[in-house]
Amino acid sequence: MAQKNAFYAQSGGVSAVINASACGVIETARGHAGTFGKVLAGRNGIIGALTEDLIDTSQESTAAIAALRHTPSGAFGSCRYKLKSLEESRREYERLLEVFQAHDIGYFFYNGGGDSADTCLKVSQLAGSLGAPIQAIHVPKTVDNDLPITDNCPGFGSVAKYIAVSVREASFDVRSMAATSTKVFVLEVMGRHAGWIAAAGGLASDKATELPIVILFPEVTFDQERFLAKVDSLVKKHGFCSVVVSEGVKGPDSKFLADQGSKDAFGHAQLGGVAPVVSGIVRDGLGLKYHWGVADYLQRAARHIASKTDVEQAYAVGKTAVELALAGRNSVMPTIVRESSYPYRWSMGEAHLSEVANVEKKMPRDFISPDGFGITATCREYLTPLIQGEDYPPYKDGLPDYVTLKNEPVEKKLPEFTI
Amino acid sequence: MAQKNAFYAQSGGVSAVINASACGVIETARGHAGTFGKVLAGRNGIIGALTEDLIDTSQESTAAIAALRHTPSGAFGSCRYKLKSLEESRREYERLLEVFQAHDIGYFFYNGGGDSADTCLKVSQLAGSLGAPIQAIHVPKTVDNDLPITDNCPGFGSVAKYIAVSVREASFDVRSMAATSTKVFVLEVMGRHAGWIAAAGGLASDKATELPIVILFPEVTFDQERFLAKVDSLVKKHGFCSVVVSEGVKGPDSKFLADQGSKDAFGHAQLGGVAPVVSGIVRDGLGLKYHWGVADYLQRAARHIASKTDVEQAYAVGKTAVELALAGRNSVMPTIVRESSYPYRWSMGEAHLSEVANVEKKMPRDFISPDGFGITATCREYLTPLIQGEDYPPYKDGLPDYVTLKNEPVEKKLPEFTI
Repeated sequence: MAQKNAFYAQSGGVSAVINASACGVIETARGHAGTFGKVLAGRNGIIGALTEDLIDTSQESTAAIAALRHTPSGAFGSCRYKLKSLEESRREYERLLEVFQAHDIGYFFYNGGGDSADTCLKVSQLAGSLGAPIQAIHVPKTVDNDLPITDNCPGFGSVAKYIAVSVREASFDVRSMAATSTKVFVLEVMGRHAGWIAAAGGLASDKATELPIVILFPEVTFDQERFLAKVDSLVKKHGFCSVVVSEGVKGPDSKFLADQGSKDAFGHAQLGGVAPVVSGIVRDGLGLKYHWGVADYLQRAARHIASKTDVEQAYAVGKTAVELALAGRNSVMPTIVRESSYPYRWSMGEAHLSEVANVEKKMPRDFISPDGFGITATCREYLTPLIQGEDYPPYKDGLPDYVTLKNEPVEKKLPEFTI
Repeated sequence: MAQKNAFYAQSGGVSAVINASACGVIETARGHAGTFGKVLAGRNGIIGALTEDLIDTSQESTAAIAALRHTPSGAFGSCRYKLKSLEESRREYERLLEVFQAHDIGYFFYNGGGDSADTCLKVSQLAGSLGAPIQAIHVPKTVDNDLPITDNCPGFGSVAKYIAVSVREASFDVRSMAATSTKVFVLEVMGRHAGWIAAAGGLASDKATELPIVILFPEVTFDQERFLAKVDSLVKKHGFCSVVVSEGVKGPDSKFLADQGSKDAFGHAQLGGVAPVVSGIVRDGLGLKYHWGVADYLQRAARHIASKTDVEQAYAVGKTAVELALAGRNSVMPTIVRESSYPYRWSMGEAHLSEVANVEKKMPRDFISPDGFGITATCREYLTPLIQGEDYPPYKDGLPDYVTLKNEPVEKKLPEFTI
């Protein structure tokens, strides 16, 4: 096999551990220099490939690449830019292949969620049909945890841990204050369509540390009367409660409880602000004192409290992606295979991208308790392993010592391309 | 000195380290059993003393008391209940003394902010004037960092660390997304009157890791035009910026930018929701994509990322309070004395409560940069030592193993008292 360069790009919302996957890709490719030349990264994701704005990662020191493992966010920049069907976006797919050819790229590692798996598959198909094959390997990443086949998606476990820890801490706080002050704390978490992240709030309470928590899932239509009855009964019994509300919760009219009316580049509605809406309902319906928080980016950037399991899996999918390329595989994605839950044992598998692209894994209905406000034992068994272990970053002057790469550009060889 | 029981209570908003002070008080008192009998705690703060709802901390194991050091919130419950002047609240002060006498209490350790220092002083004065002396020692605690004389207030350093870490992490996230998506991240932090907590957001950027951050302090009247110009210039230069906004920021009309209109038991306006207001200003004024978060209770409960310095100081003020009592002192508060900033060296001092009660320490004007949007080198020198070191709690099943005490009640001896 002749030596070829590899292209790596980050796609969509970033996470606490997507750079750990980048670290896995680059370190493993560096270890097989006979097969892989340079790893070139797309500046700001796939846009970097389209505009031939490539980063030469070979300019980064071994220490800088190693530091990616403990650095949150997307070190090369990410983007929300979706390529459509081969017919609709043919000009862009062809441009990608042109750039890959100009820079002697034979491997395409694309680190993202369902949309990028689809892009990855199409690049591979088009390259094959044009007789200029590219081995396209998708590296799974999404805090939404909605990719099929794989046990979970790197990025999710760390958000889950952050939410579980935060809900436990805030619940202890409210419990202290409830006699004369705040009785209900409402925390808004991410999750447009699926309640995976909200479900993690349920882990804050366990047998050793019981805490009253109400979860509002996007899968369960919001019923104001039943919600208020639930909060009322918990506050009467325990003196307080915490509410974890997913940004994607909808009312009986099928509208988001909080809809800002704007949309992102993928056409998804951009949400935010359901916590104050729910708090207002508590105030008006029960007259209870409340506080509310919105975790927003803090939850997915919180590398300081990342799950060790998640970091290890994020690195492993990057490493395995390169190993799959070495083994001659194409149009595949490394998957995490759960072998047992208690204790958690996992290994790496693979899935063909045709099984992954545009398939959304929903949360099983039996993960949600019959009353719709909590998680079941089955859900707990699924989630608990994913938050195991701490993987603290190094600190300097009291702050995490995260790396910012040099991101040296590769010289351009092609005419300009406008997107 | 005859053996007497001690009374300990937590007051006002709780913190990540107020239980470390409780730990310092109880462990130190247990070590001097000749002087101190039992430490009785007020259930839900001073309300527990008024209603004779006392907790017998001698029922708690050595391990449980030691675990307070790494457990956030108020283990015995806190309250927002302010005693007024001796004239206005004489009935309550007399009741306190009655309860103290009935339970053979000779020492009053009150763990809180400015209001509780005032209560502490008045209890001591009244007890003295009635010939039934009580040694009243105030144990400083407030995330607002607004007590005078002491270098800082336990609780603040950990909030500062949480905010600095979170702003750094969220800024890395926005930086990754800015090419096609979010360019401005707005984080709302606590601080009604003083910008101490907001200032800590400025630590997220330092020489090794430069990040564009705009701070909105309550000390600086919000000027929409200047704010938009600042954000615009940072986004043009860096592609993105983070905004840290204090809940207490006021507009030119002297009204809070976000005023929910309700008030807490101390008569303070209850705020929340300035982040979406500021985000809307960015959207309407500059047309930039934004995200916003509200840290709320997460910031003050975040024991998982507490400052080691803060934990040590919180323990030290509890321990020193008991040592001051042993030395026969009355109506005093242990203070933290800064001996040098780089490296940070501190020792314990003391202040008379007449110098502490109802005196609010403001942030010096020379801590805020001339343009009003950042911190100065002087402020950095003050803040940096306070976030040094990590003091991770133990974990179990992926979550911090925080203690919940048994909180066994002491048998009542007096007629009921209604508050």
